[in-house]
Amino acid sequence: MNLRRLFSRTCSAPAARDRLQLLLAHERAAVGGSDLLAKLRDEILGAIAKHVQIDGDKVSIKMERGDQVSTLAVDIEIPFEAAKKAA
Amino acid sequence: MNLRRLFSRTCSAPAARDRLQLLLAHERAAVGGSDLLAKLRDEILGAIAKHVQIDGDKVSIKMERGDQVSTLAVDIEIPFEAAKKAA
Repeated sequence: MNLRRLFSRTCSAPAARDRLQLLLAHERAAVGGSDLLAKLRDEILGAIAKHVQIDGDKVSIKMERGDQVSTLAVDIEIPFEAAKKAA
Repeated sequence: MNLRRLFSRTCSAPAARDRLQLLLAHERAAVGGSDLLAKLRDEILGAIAKHVQIDGDKVSIKMERGDQVSTLAVDIEIPFEAAKKAA
């Protein structure tokens, strides 16, 4: 899994804001099975919100559920002040 | 950010285990700044451990810190029984 290259390539021009991107993928051995990502989504967002202030309209959350692979993609723009507070 | 394609391509042969892959990237507006990922790592792993049983030796954690982008990559194999318990 060499996703880091993708993230480093998508490094936009010096942004005035920090950016947090998360991708979570659950590959199931059996079709169907648990909706683990739905359970994890709120807890992970809660953990992030403890450390940085999140603007509701600067958060993009996409979930996709396939037969064997479900993915959760979260993209958060962090206001510059909030990022400094987390330092 | 179309990372989902990558995950779906890397979908291995029907595995006897479920697999959870996480990639977290923090793109900072200013060089230096907070080590947000180090703070989030344990909380996110804790959230995951609440829902599935994790074997210490089936967990791979890689963190990389660049000037502007830090990444956290976690790859967890979930024993089939544990995945059913989470259902």
